[in-house]
Amino acid sequence: MTKQKVIIVGAGLSGSLLAIYLAKRGIECEIFEARGDMRKETMSAGRSINLALSNRGIAALKEVGLDEYMLSEAVPMFGRMIHALDGSRKLLPYSGRKGEYINSVSRAGLNIELMNEAEKYDGVRFYFNEKCVDFDCASGEAEFESGKIVKGDTLVATDGAGSAVRSAMLHGGVPRFDFSQKWLAHGYKELHIPPSQNCLRERADTTRHFRDSTENPSAYADGSDVFQMEKNALHIWARHSFMMIALPNFDGSFTCTLFLAHKGDNGFEQLTDEISLMNFFETNFADAIPLMPTLTEDFFTNPTGNLGTIKCFPWNAGGKSLLIGDSAHAVVPFYGQGMNASFEDCRILNGLLDKHGTHWETVFDEFTNIRKPNADAIAQMAEENFYEMRDAVADETFQKKRALETKLEQTFPDYFSKYSMVTFREDLPYAVAKQKGNAQDKLLMEICAEIDDVSAIDLNEVMGKING
Amino acid sequence: MTKQKVIIVGAGLSGSLLAIYLAKRGIECEIFEARGDMRKETMSAGRSINLALSNRGIAALKEVGLDEYMLSEAVPMFGRMIHALDGSRKLLPYSGRKGEYINSVSRAGLNIELMNEAEKYDGVRFYFNEKCVDFDCASGEAEFESGKIVKGDTLVATDGAGSAVRSAMLHGGVPRFDFSQKWLAHGYKELHIPPSQNCLRERADTTRHFRDSTENPSAYADGSDVFQMEKNALHIWARHSFMMIALPNFDGSFTCTLFLAHKGDNGFEQLTDEISLMNFFETNFADAIPLMPTLTEDFFTNPTGNLGTIKCFPWNAGGKSLLIGDSAHAVVPFYGQGMNASFEDCRILNGLLDKHGTHWETVFDEFTNIRKPNADAIAQMAEENFYEMRDAVADETFQKKRALETKLEQTFPDYFSKYSMVTFREDLPYAVAKQKGNAQDKLLMEICAEIDDVSAIDLNEVMGKING
Repeated sequence: MTKQKVIIVGAGLSGSLLAIYLAKRGIECEIFEARGDMRKETMSAGRSINLALSNRGIAALKEVGLDEYMLSEAVPMFGRMIHALDGSRKLLPYSGRKGEYINSVSRAGLNIELMNEAEKYDGVRFYFNEKCVDFDCASGEAEFESGKIVKGDTLVATDGAGSAVRSAMLHGGVPRFDFSQKWLAHGYKELHIPPSQNCLRERADTTRHFRDSTENPSAYADGSDVFQMEKNALHIWARHSFMMIALPNFDGSFTCTLFLAHKGDNGFEQLTDEISLMNFFETNFADAIPLMPTLTEDFFTNPTGNLGTIKCFPWNAGGKSLLIGDSAHAVVPFYGQGMNASFEDCRILNGLLDKHGTHWETVFDEFTNIRKPNADAIAQMAEENFYEMRDAVADETFQKKRALETKLEQTFPDYFSKYSMVTFREDLPYAVAKQKGNAQDKLLMEICAEIDDVSAIDLNEVMGKING
Repeated sequence: MTKQKVIIVGAGLSGSLLAIYLAKRGIECEIFEARGDMRKETMSAGRSINLALSNRGIAALKEVGLDEYMLSEAVPMFGRMIHALDGSRKLLPYSGRKGEYINSVSRAGLNIELMNEAEKYDGVRFYFNEKCVDFDCASGEAEFESGKIVKGDTLVATDGAGSAVRSAMLHGGVPRFDFSQKWLAHGYKELHIPPSQNCLRERADTTRHFRDSTENPSAYADGSDVFQMEKNALHIWARHSFMMIALPNFDGSFTCTLFLAHKGDNGFEQLTDEISLMNFFETNFADAIPLMPTLTEDFFTNPTGNLGTIKCFPWNAGGKSLLIGDSAHAVVPFYGQGMNASFEDCRILNGLLDKHGTHWETVFDEFTNIRKPNADAIAQMAEENFYEMRDAVADETFQKKRALETKLEQTFPDYFSKYSMVTFREDLPYAVAKQKGNAQDKLLMEICAEIDDVSAIDLNEVMGKING
């Protein structure tokens, strides 16, 4: 075959990683991004500042040799730190095994590294401020707001949840195109916990040392020298009908995300001024207030985001276009798998190019058939995890179940909780993790509902039931 | 309040019926229809020729005094006539009670009557060839292809599954608008069984007499003088992965609908010429071939339609617009409830206008909250009934279950099968019919799987289980 050229719509995380994968195969890539070059401009508001990178994402980065570098910029999180109403804290580890943890990474930092890496290849060109407005599924031509019309051997849409390419496929481009968008009643708002005051002066040139305390995963450094809370945890204030979480940043700060219903009791619409906001925080997140000097300003300046799930089928218009990442399967953020699933898309797609070469239609058809059930599985698990995070982590039976799972993971190398299968087992498709995980969850919750003391449980008997 | 004006987008079945309801309340209605006036022009292809009118639809017509007139033009269908592969036929009654049957009506005939009736009111005006292209959810203005811009006190969209008003609500008009469209792998094609040859001469001026034999619902006239098959039945050729049905028309003909997968074995794509078509029919529908003199012509002339389910939420943009009928909840046709559900929408909406007056936002919010769970219920039951019709009606256990249900209905006045609750109980919301019906179905299928002879079943015991 002659040298192939692929048009990529969107220079976000998936688009940039995909460009590297394709460029390594000698495929020419033209990437068109609606926004400006984030390496030169401030990122627009409304996108999450940090993300949880876990094994599926790491595996995809590893294949292009970027995993170690990316992890060196990350803050490991070994468990969920549950903040009770009275301010007490309790760590629920993500796994009973060393080495199984998730990593808080900067979205912008990761994206910039991926773009820089992609640009090292001759065949890769980025075009910024080029907003795709239409795509012709018959001719394969993409049209941009600038009037530019481009066409390659094929096109991959990585233009996110609001994908213009998907919109063209929906509106007549692909006959009988299944599509759904579904929104949660809850929205989100990002807030900020800065590093400790006494460390701010040192911060600029000593960022690297923040990672030191994480070399031994069992040492949960309280990070009091720089971080205002335990550094190596994902913090959760679970309040049943709403919650706040916080992920550590490499610079000693935390990015908090407040999840509230848009309307009704304890909803965003009730927090109309500083008084109602502070009353709400004093009632529900009192321990966080002293850590958030810019709370009021952040709350009333930052936009309130929406949380939705997008599904569609098929993901390709023959061999003319393929949707990957959020454009094909946007999920809510509660399993920390959005980016990881998108990166996994790139790795699986690359594997199919190994298998079939650039027979795009064959590759795209098989990709869609392989990935669709897995995307549906993580979409559902992500929605369900919202309820787990805001309700269950504060529930006694659930905490006993997590303790039991931790013990099982410490005792049996081949035991993995549902969370662990999703998060640490890049060899297991999401759909398999979901099916096995749900069966396990049901069994363990039944066991834990009946006992007071987890240490009284016969672990071998439990494993027998799981494997039987 | 001053005299209200409502813009109705779409002069189909729901739009025309709604206009009557509103006009009776003294509300002015302007109805804008994309097509020409069907009373003056031939209807475009692609829409079903006849429809099953049942109790929910009848109840809605009754409130505006049109039920008896419409039924006088209908052909009652007392059950499903199952056509086996060997040509033998068996009737499965829809109910064990007299008076519980469905009615095959002409879509065009019904629509024309509704338009004629609506136009009797001074405040009602129809505008044809006015295609809505946009709607402003903030201002309430609707824009038409002609350039016309109109605005009333509110707008009701009855513009069907491809609703332009819904599209405007989806694309930014209503924040966090949930939407899904999902297509079946099967499509459909309409075919034709004409009246008996020897009756064609008489047909023109004696259509009324075709109804004579139906006055006594227990007499299943074979209709051999005019109809080529049993007149008072919905005919089904159930062939597991596909099926054909036929509904009687008032003129002695039947309209057949062939449901096949678009692709793959026994799919439309394999029927490419007369030879493959006739082979397929000889193998699967041999008894129908002699009745269908224009089979080949019909098959290759008529379009292949798609079958989809559309769901969305909310159905209103505050008090500015409301979606009803297919624009809010298009369903697949397998429960014969699409039109009935849309008519029921009109009746429920009218009830809320009794309750709240023309406080549109209050009425629309409550309407959406009441109707959405019911629309979701009938959508799911309609999809499930596809599998029942093509598979289960040919299944022995299912036939025993239908026989048992018929006996129960004959014996107990307060027993209703799921089908009967959906079809004959306009007092039961769809969601209630679904919930109760599923529980009953499960129980009766279990009973029938274990016995050979339905007459051996203790009916009182079964009723005890159902009510316990």
